[in-house]
Amino acid sequence: MYSFRNDYSEGAHEKVLKALTDTNYIQTVGYGLDPVCEEARELIRNLCNAPQADVHFLVGGTQTNLVVIDSLLRPYEAVIAAHTGHVNVHETGAIEATGHKVCAAFAPDGKLTPALVEQVVNAHSSEHMVHPKLVYISDTTELGTLYTKSELTALRRCCDENGLYLFLDGARLGSALASPENDLTFADLAELTDVFYIGGTKNGALFGEALVMTVPNEHFRWHMKQRGAILAKGRLLGLQFKALLEDGLYLDLARHANELAYRLRDGIAALGYPFPVASSTNQQFPVVPDTVMEKLIGMGYEFEVERKEDEDHTCIRFVTSWATPVSAVEKFLEDLANC
Amino acid sequence: MYSFRNDYSEGAHEKVLKALTDTNYIQTVGYGLDPVCEEARELIRNLCNAPQADVHFLVGGTQTNLVVIDSLLRPYEAVIAAHTGHVNVHETGAIEATGHKVCAAFAPDGKLTPALVEQVVNAHSSEHMVHPKLVYISDTTELGTLYTKSELTALRRCCDENGLYLFLDGARLGSALASPENDLTFADLAELTDVFYIGGTKNGALFGEALVMTVPNEHFRWHMKQRGAILAKGRLLGLQFKALLEDGLYLDLARHANELAYRLRDGIAALGYPFPVASSTNQQFPVVPDTVMEKLIGMGYEFEVERKEDEDHTCIRFVTSWATPVSAVEKFLEDLANC
Amino acid sequence: MYSFRNDYSEGAHEKVLKALTDTNYIQTVGYGLDPVCEEARELIRNLCNAPQADVHFLVGGTQTNLVVIDSLLRPYEAVIAAHTGHVNVHETGAIEATGHKVCAAFAPDGKLTPALVEQVVNAHSSEHMVHPKLVYISDTTELGTLYTKSELTALRRCCDENGLYLFLDGARLGSALASPENDLTFADLAELTDVFYIGGTKNGALFGEALVMTVPNEHFRWHMKQRGAILAKGRLLGLQFKALLEDGLYLDLARHANELAYRLRDGIAALGYPFPVASSTNQQFPVVPDTVMEKLIGMGYEFEVERKEDEDHTCIRFVTSWATPVSAVEKFLEDLANC
Amino acid sequence: MYSFRNDYSEGAHEKVLKALTDTNYIQTVGYGLDPVCEEARELIRNLCNAPQADVHFLVGGTQTNLVVIDSLLRPYEAVIAAHTGHVNVHETGAIEATGHKVCAAFAPDGKLTPALVEQVVNAHSSEHMVHPKLVYISDTTELGTLYTKSELTALRRCCDENGLYLFLDGARLGSALASPENDLTFADLAELTDVFYIGGTKNGALFGEALVMTVPNEHFRWHMKQRGAILAKGRLLGLQFKALLEDGLYLDLARHANELAYRLRDGIAALGYPFPVASSTNQQFPVVPDTVMEKLIGMGYEFEVERKEDEDHTCIRFVTSWATPVSAVEKFLEDLANC
Repeated sequence: MYSFRNDYSEGAHEKVLKALTDTNYIQTVGYGLDPVCEEARELIRNLCNAPQADVHFLVGGTQTNLVVIDSLLRPYEAVIAAHTGHVNVHETGAIEATGHKVCAAFAPDGKLTPALVEQVVNAHSSEHMVHPKLVYISDTTELGTLYTKSELTALRRCCDENGLYLFLDGARLGSALASPENDLTFADLAELTDVFYIGGTKNGALFGEALVMTVPNEHFRWHMKQRGAILAKGRLLGLQFKALLEDGLYLDLARHANELAYRLRDGIAALGYPFPVASSTNQQFPVVPDTVMEKLIGMGYEFEVERKEDEDHTCIRFVTSWATPVSAVEKFLEDLANC
Repeated sequence: MYSFRNDYSEGAHEKVLKALTDTNYIQTVGYGLDPVCEEARELIRNLCNAPQADVHFLVGGTQTNLVVIDSLLRPYEAVIAAHTGHVNVHETGAIEATGHKVCAAFAPDGKLTPALVEQVVNAHSSEHMVHPKLVYISDTTELGTLYTKSELTALRRCCDENGLYLFLDGARLGSALASPENDLTFADLAELTDVFYIGGTKNGALFGEALVMTVPNEHFRWHMKQRGAILAKGRLLGLQFKALLEDGLYLDLARHANELAYRLRDGIAALGYPFPVASSTNQQFPVVPDTVMEKLIGMGYEFEVERKEDEDHTCIRFVTSWATPVSAVEKFLEDLANC
Repeated sequence: MYSFRNDYSEGAHEKVLKALTDTNYIQTVGYGLDPVCEEARELIRNLCNAPQADVHFLVGGTQTNLVVIDSLLRPYEAVIAAHTGHVNVHETGAIEATGHKVCAAFAPDGKLTPALVEQVVNAHSSEHMVHPKLVYISDTTELGTLYTKSELTALRRCCDENGLYLFLDGARLGSALASPENDLTFADLAELTDVFYIGGTKNGALFGEALVMTVPNEHFRWHMKQRGAILAKGRLLGLQFKALLEDGLYLDLARHANELAYRLRDGIAALGYPFPVASSTNQQFPVVPDTVMEKLIGMGYEFEVERKEDEDHTCIRFVTSWATPVSAVEKFLEDLANC
Repeated sequence: MYSFRNDYSEGAHEKVLKALTDTNYIQTVGYGLDPVCEEARELIRNLCNAPQADVHFLVGGTQTNLVVIDSLLRPYEAVIAAHTGHVNVHETGAIEATGHKVCAAFAPDGKLTPALVEQVVNAHSSEHMVHPKLVYISDTTELGTLYTKSELTALRRCCDENGLYLFLDGARLGSALASPENDLTFADLAELTDVFYIGGTKNGALFGEALVMTVPNEHFRWHMKQRGAILAKGRLLGLQFKALLEDGLYLDLARHANELAYRLRDGIAALGYPFPVASSTNQQFPVVPDTVMEKLIGMGYEFEVERKEDEDHTCIRFVTSWATPVSAVEKFLEDLANC
């Protein structure tokens, strides 16, 4: 049976694998200083319409989050995040381990707003408290929601007014940008954030996140090295992002994932199961009776439990990916109908 | 006019000053290894009925909190605290600066309960999350409330069941133990917590906190030194605690502070101002109209603003101390009556 | 022209690539909890004759070093390393960034001895100093030398007598074990160290280090996650180590690298260039006149400069790898002869 | 018998005690924001001819060192110190605990020179290494030596050329400035360093270090609070420094300590005991036969052992202070003559 547990259950898109194989015996210098990484950087700067941006390649999301945040903050400065934010709950205190507090704001749909940000800022007024300095958001969020251009623009303005950095975690950026509800572009992200990343791990690469920094951060590679975040064979990252980005494959793969998510969503909804938070991306969170959940597990389906909804119901998470076959979704819907 | 801003506006009780003056030219070794510190340690062990306890003297509360917590936790472990807890809001991220997350539980009266603790524990279930390992409570709390023996016993049981340390911040312990609502003793604290401290700074000393550890922590002095928390002339700490504790002065001073707080509270209440959280200790939090608050400020009174209560009202904090004269409270009540 | 700059200039051995390709569409759970990682773990436990050992897969060396050391040490504890040790000079302070001092001992050949270790231990005697607790060694060392079984046994005894952990960085372990001067086995390493790793990055993998811990470290995966060191598609690591280790390929590749290093060494020596430190592994450090070095650079050869030896001479480093062709070495020796 | 163990064996000069007693019941705001601290700050700015300098009061030396260094450095930046430097050996890794490496240079007399500094700078050339950014020196040094104006000027120039901060630990600054070999003034220190401190603990105060920063460091009080280094009753620090500095008492006390040290030195030398490093300050390091050392200990004298000099001799440290009576030195010299 199929696993809808996450979007990194398989390897990589075959174009990515082919790029690795084709260049296997070419010698390059290490650490991401090779020509392929440079090509990939240039490609990304062009996509982002940001010729001055710094582009760095890192292996994973938690690593990227902790290096970026530690590189931008002074010891007494803190992060503002939604209570559902990955840095707040799912990184084993990685940010705190670099010395920084994460100030969580309760955000039912996983999205920060200027009002939530200012509430945190206003609560921190003296030298006896941390100084919030960086707003961390995810697009898509951990609940599958996304930011519109007007929402992101409002956050940018709020950050400017309050002297805050804006950092967008794009581990699932592909799914966000490929959603019909999205009106943001790579160029908008480069313009509206100080730093964001284009997630590869969850959208067709073996691994890798491409970080785009428009805020000056001259010694960023020192920070990376100190946290064990410079890959020796850095070219592996450049090769993968070049393969994914040079002809639009990245968004094509995300579009596929999204479309299967909608099919799944619509099929589940048609059977009468509610979705407390609407999602137009590749994560879907229906609420099902526990009896149904147990039957699905019994059939061998895999998914994450998001939370107990009440005595008899559970909110569960389905994730589709670039590799999810249509047949898997259809079979699942059939099986669910029979539960 | 009088300052009710806090309980550390003056110097020290004269018995403390006399002890410092009388011994001024006696030579001792440094770092708290002198005979006076040893006497004070023995005195505290006796008070606590804890002959095996380790006793350490530190200069201030934030310093004590960060050294204790850092010494007990492994890097991935976290603190559970009330959202109002000093370590959560008033220490500029001191705990996070040692690498540990503070998991805050919303506690309207500033007190943790087994239910609140378990809610945090249950929300942290995997290696992708921090592992809550230490419960931090304050007695009195930051809102002037205190723990009863049955409440503390219940927390102890909860900690035992969940493999948690219990750490009690006693920066205002004198006021708690001297309250008529208190039924805890020093010996109870030594038995029911793993580590707690007897606050000197806010109850008659120039500075100093006496830490009582019943949990093994063999290299605690290494932790202290690393955080700059071993005072060169350590005897200054031993001398002060000896003076405060050897004949009951410590609780006498706290009783004085409390009694003036009750007089203040009762006088303010008699004028019709409400107290959202009842306090039987030396911090009192009435709600007054902003116009009244401004008049008090205009007269030269000092106090802290706790929070805006609504458009026109503010919750303010009054603190009395061992040094507060009766006349100051009487004059204040007269002036308030005229507002 | 060929690059002798390091042993990670190419991709991966084709058997590794094939393993990735063949399994690309199989779904597995993430984070190294999949069946292939489990197979690779079992394989390694068998190779090490250490059925109880914990085996973890990490992406790179600096990452592995910092997670291991941070997981084993208490805040006041320190590392003992050779002054040339990777953790002392080449990791941008990664160990210090986790809070721990590295106490460096001057070791001309890059190897620690019991005498050097005890010199550091004896110099740290009080709570005003760090407490050395972990001995870090590399095999091969950063100078290409290696440890014999009797040397490692002596270090083990020294560690036992002084209450120290022994951690062996095996980023280039293949080259050490494949050297004719080596008399250690994987099983010896598991028996004599508390923790060591089998380096994949520099010996045929795309990336990856396989950590073998015989010291208890129950929450090691929490430490990994906190440092961003759990790979989402963890199976990529298991697959690679399985491919390298299941039929001896790992040592075959290292043997190839070593043999080309000897051919290089012997050819260079035959031309009269001295080698200050003898190496029987895949790093070779001849001293050449600067004029010769410049000619080699002019021809397009790549290598690292180790240090200026005197006014006119430089010690340079040549590294061979699993991928180095015989022809490249022969061509180089011809070209050098003509310098 | 007398203790020459250190210069913090007694309490405080009586003028300091009197200042504390006289102001005991005056109410002030806490945290060093009171009028007395402000007076003391102004006094120090005047002494330093540095009207723009920031002055902060901290409790002790290790605390001051760690807060200053952590506040100035970015995570990948490191300290350059003499191998004997207090931050390198006597602070239980306090600097590393804030994440920063201390790069030690071997300095036989405890003093850094431009050549030693540049040697460290030149050895750190890439993103794989820490970036040395701050030069830490002590005046007097840990060996009793001091810096001349020309030496300090040369270090300043070296720091400017290499983009380094210059931080002078003045825990024993009084003794340095009161030495006949000194030609530096408070104003020179403010001009030539980025930050230095005037040590109170070892020269007549109960405790306290007065930090003078000419380098911008806007949020320094946030750093202090985070490290538990803001004293609640901050006025205690202001009062003490005002008492010591307002009429030259500080240097008078240091001159007394030095003169007794010279008397001790000259008397010991007259008995034929050598001093490997010449000191014109209040720490003296003679070498004595172990038999003599044992006799002195037997008589009840106290002093620190610096190091074993050879089989039968030990280098020991004598420290005099503002409180050392002439009679104690005379009696000691008599007793030594009889050894």
